Amino acid sequence: MGRMIGLLQVDPTVGDLTGNAKRLEQLSHLASKNGADVAVTTELAISGYPPRDLLLQDEFIRLAQQTAISLNVPLPVLVGTPIEAKTERQLPGNGVVRAGNKDAVSKDGSSHILARKQLLPSYDVFDEARYFQPDTRSGIARTIAQLDLGVTVCEDAWQAAGLTPSTYSADPIEHLAEWGRQGVQLDATVNLSASPYHADKLSSRIHVCRTAARILNHPFLLANQVGGNDDLLFDGNSLVAWPDGRVVVAPAWQEGVLLVDIDDSENCRWVASETQGALCIGSDQIRHVSPDDKGHEYDKDLLEDLTDAVVTGLSDYCRKSGISSIVLGLSGGIDSAVAACVAAAAVGPENVTGIAMPSRHSSQHSIDDARHTAQALGIHFDMIPIDSFHLSVEESIGEVLSNGHPVASENLQSRLRGLLVMAHANAQGHMAIATGNKSELAQGYCTLYGDMAGGYTPLGDLYKMQVYGLADMFNTRAERDGRIQPVNESTRTKPPSAELAPDQKDEDSLPPYDVLDGILHAHIEEGLDAQAIAEKGFDRGMVVEVLTRLEHSEHKRWQMSPAPRVSSRAFGQGWRRPLASRHDWRH
Amino acid sequence: MGRMIGLLQVDPTVGDLTGNAKRLEQLSHLASKNGADVAVTTELAISGYPPRDLLLQDEFIRLAQQTAISLNVPLPVLVGTPIEAKTERQLPGNGVVRAGNKDAVSKDGSSHILARKQLLPSYDVFDEARYFQPDTRSGIARTIAQLDLGVTVCEDAWQAAGLTPSTYSADPIEHLAEWGRQGVQLDATVNLSASPYHADKLSSRIHVCRTAARILNHPFLLANQVGGNDDLLFDGNSLVAWPDGRVVVAPAWQEGVLLVDIDDSENCRWVASETQGALCIGSDQIRHVSPDDKGHEYDKDLLEDLTDAVVTGLSDYCRKSGISSIVLGLSGGIDSAVAACVAAAAVGPENVTGIAMPSRHSSQHSIDDARHTAQALGIHFDMIPIDSFHLSVEESIGEVLSNGHPVASENLQSRLRGLLVMAHANAQGHMAIATGNKSELAQGYCTLYGDMAGGYTPLGDLYKMQVYGLADMFNTRAERDGRIQPVNESTRTKPPSAELAPDQKDEDSLPPYDVLDGILHAHIEEGLDAQAIAEKGFDRGMVVEVLTRLEHSEHKRWQMSPAPRVSSRAFGQGWRRPLASRHDWRH
Repeated sequence: MGRMIGLLQVDPTVGDLTGNAKRLEQLSHLASKNGADVAVTTELAISGYPPRDLLLQDEFIRLAQQTAISLNVPLPVLVGTPIEAKTERQLPGNGVVRAGNKDAVSKDGSSHILARKQLLPSYDVFDEARYFQPDTRSGIARTIAQLDLGVTVCEDAWQAAGLTPSTYSADPIEHLAEWGRQGVQLDATVNLSASPYHADKLSSRIHVCRTAARILNHPFLLANQVGGNDDLLFDGNSLVAWPDGRVVVAPAWQEGVLLVDIDDSENCRWVASETQGALCIGSDQIRHVSPDDKGHEYDKDLLEDLTDAVVTGLSDYCRKSGISSIVLGLSGGIDSAVAACVAAAAVGPENVTGIAMPSRHSSQHSIDDARHTAQALGIHFDMIPIDSFHLSVEESIGEVLSNGHPVASENLQSRLRGLLVMAHANAQGHMAIATGNKSELAQGYCTLYGDMAGGYTPLGDLYKMQVYGLADMFNTRAERDGRIQPVNESTRTKPPSAELAPDQKDEDSLPPYDVLDGILHAHIEEGLDAQAIAEKGFDRGMVVEVLTRLEHSEHKRWQMSPAPRVSSRAFGQGWRRPLASRHDWRH
Repeated sequence: MGRMIGLLQVDPTVGDLTGNAKRLEQLSHLASKNGADVAVTTELAISGYPPRDLLLQDEFIRLAQQTAISLNVPLPVLVGTPIEAKTERQLPGNGVVRAGNKDAVSKDGSSHILARKQLLPSYDVFDEARYFQPDTRSGIARTIAQLDLGVTVCEDAWQAAGLTPSTYSADPIEHLAEWGRQGVQLDATVNLSASPYHADKLSSRIHVCRTAARILNHPFLLANQVGGNDDLLFDGNSLVAWPDGRVVVAPAWQEGVLLVDIDDSENCRWVASETQGALCIGSDQIRHVSPDDKGHEYDKDLLEDLTDAVVTGLSDYCRKSGISSIVLGLSGGIDSAVAACVAAAAVGPENVTGIAMPSRHSSQHSIDDARHTAQALGIHFDMIPIDSFHLSVEESIGEVLSNGHPVASENLQSRLRGLLVMAHANAQGHMAIATGNKSELAQGYCTLYGDMAGGYTPLGDLYKMQVYGLADMFNTRAERDGRIQPVNESTRTKPPSAELAPDQKDEDSLPPYDVLDGILHAHIEEGLDAQAIAEKGFDRGMVVEVLTRLEHSEHKRWQMSPAPRVSSRAFGQGWRRPLASRHDWRH
């Protein structure tokens, strides 16, 4: 019997202190029952990550910390929680307290505080300098259940691996290593994380843990949050690395406990949560990564993973918002077909309604393909032709339209559909979802208050070609389960069209999607400018057109509902760009 | 002839390096022509504030810095600009370079760098830890045009006055004072600011400058940005304080130069910008504040100021976005009447179209009052009854509606109106504006994609009672100018109603607006919880209802278009709150 640490991979709801406490208590009992000596939660597990401006309320911090310390658990647990500020004009800490040690409760709870986060990320989706005071001690270690543990929180471990965009003035891993060189021997170092997902993130996280384990010369354990909170997804994939490069990774998109025998990587186990309603999507297998593997071998599972990610995002958004049913427009095109697949997987097909809303510009195949998807998925299907409304509105404002820009009449159709979908949503208590993808949203090729209407945009951070990928994956899964493929050949192969004008095709306005996606990826994810993108072999004029449309459609994205973050940058450098001030300084 | 410093109060457009450079050159010439020895711009004047994620592009930083150094100006100018990072893994600086000294140009421009900001605010609307590396030197002073000047940037001066929410580890004002005690005599200290507006901000800024002047024992000069960039407004009000407490304040909402004779407060002058299209709203008088005044005496002008602020916000948003005309729905109610007044003042009445869209629930006075406002303002007026569309949509989805929540049919009307307004906007190239106010938006008493549709929400940060205040102000101004009052008695006094159901009144669903505003203000602006608000004398049950609706309507505000920030907190602690995770931890 080795020395066993349980990593509690939890899916907390931001702000739900009571519910999160219950989830952590259940996982702690599971860890204890399965032989753990000590357990470790994820970062800010008690409040959920990211609590954002809830952290500006002192009373919230106080209650969170109190709840964390008072967890009813049968073993010592290192709990991630906001920690009250030391003085009135300081900020709170992003810290770790000890639960499960009733005898040692001090009156103010201060003796339970084990650590505060030292490096506060303030880039990309992170904003921690806004909320927290960093700890400036040179390394933090604690003896718990006879184990001597280094204690770090998320970013604390990333500086050593060189994976932060700018350099911090301290390196907590190096500090702990210095202790080792001075003769302080630790059994392991733990890391409480809320490390968001994007499609190639796991290999980075493996690199971080391996680097830390090598520098520290002892096992490095990272407990990572799982599930979705608004637009942020967390994949779980909690892991442990040994100094020789061996790694064991927990499943993604599942709640449970990774039991780590720090003396024997072969003796690690995954125990899935037994709680009703626990997040449980995808495979429940742990993975052993040998020292020679970079972790990139999981790329072959990328599409499986991406599909699970998108489903998790929508299902968690619904569960955490108290939404149990979904309505969406079904155009017969690839986007709405895949959005319907995601919705059916997220809340169950019996809780999804798809509405076909053909206009005079819709083809018969649009209706047939939409109906096919609905029937194959087993969702409710409704059809409301919009031509009579369209004509009557056009008639009443005929002069305005006929003297104006033709896009007005196109948008009118999209907005009539948005209005009908929202009427269903409001009347029946469904949430409407928007069906747009990242490529068209990036180009403004979408209608505000029309196809952009909805409380959540499940495909909003997927490029068009990735949407096709998800279509294949949903078809493969249907086949695997003996069901009819939801995305038929016609939907899969017809030229994309908004069908808002006669014979309209997306390619009349946009480059072919594989080209468009290439340009957008180069700019948004890789940060390249027009010159550098053209040097990759794209037509320079086309690149400038695409980037100009990207800038000029920012006013639409300002009003976009949350979309699960699955790319490395959600509209990248644009997502916090000014709107009115979108002057292109490059021209 | 004294020693004269020109504070260049500029209205830059974020990202428009060339345009901003031109504005700064024109103001510099004006300063020089009027006797300034040296001029000082606002913070990040060359890029405009806030550049947000433009700052993640190295090439943008490089170009901005180069443009700032190369300004063609006839006197030495301290120019606020982003400054390139010193090394690849550092962040850029928020700094000050010297322009107007052609003889001393070094090859890399580094000899022009005068200062970097030392304190980086990362709270409220500020996010500077995300973008910048702080300077950690103990005080920065420069000799320019034979003047020995302390150089600070915005927040650098706020720590000394105790007006930052948490304490920084350094205090640049104290550092400069320490130099003084060591015998280094400075003539004055300048501060390049982009200090956003809210309705009682000027007295804080006066306090900051007086505190610094007293500590430093020399004049303290603050050049502040003016104008709107998206949802942020800057009021200008550049000012100088002397150690004895005398203060001179430049006009608000105007571009120009405050000429400061540092030896004689009576010899200060305002010279308005002579550039065509320069921001020029409200009074052009400078104000002398005696040492005994706290600056609160300007509260009597609060409504004038608030009105100018809201007009500036919309007019700058339009100009900077290349929008020249506006369309909005005119319901005959107070909000749309005031929104029309703002629009007419912002882009000229000839460029505004108001549309009345009565339904079967609309009263005759709604149409009459809407027409009155349009005629009094001289804007275009159109009327499109929506009853036939409403009936035909209701008929086609009758079953969905009749078995569902009655709010669906109400929202349907609002969305039909949104659709018609947007059709006008798209066809004719107008921007639609949303007419909602902060009180109803805070309660979710508004329709997504309906009355919330539009590119900008001019009243979105004004409580309902403030909207009435603006109505009075627009009426007063009309009377002053010999025009008909745009907001008639009927609009002003009838009970607010959405008119979406028979005999509907806002008070059927909400507390009376004066009570609602009191509760919302206590929570959003003062940060009080339900208990503390009830102790002010509000009914506890009502307080809980209001705060619950505030939380549950966050999903709507996520999709809201920009609204000019005029309250001390734009939805306060809620504006960055999670959506799906809006669990109320207080119950």
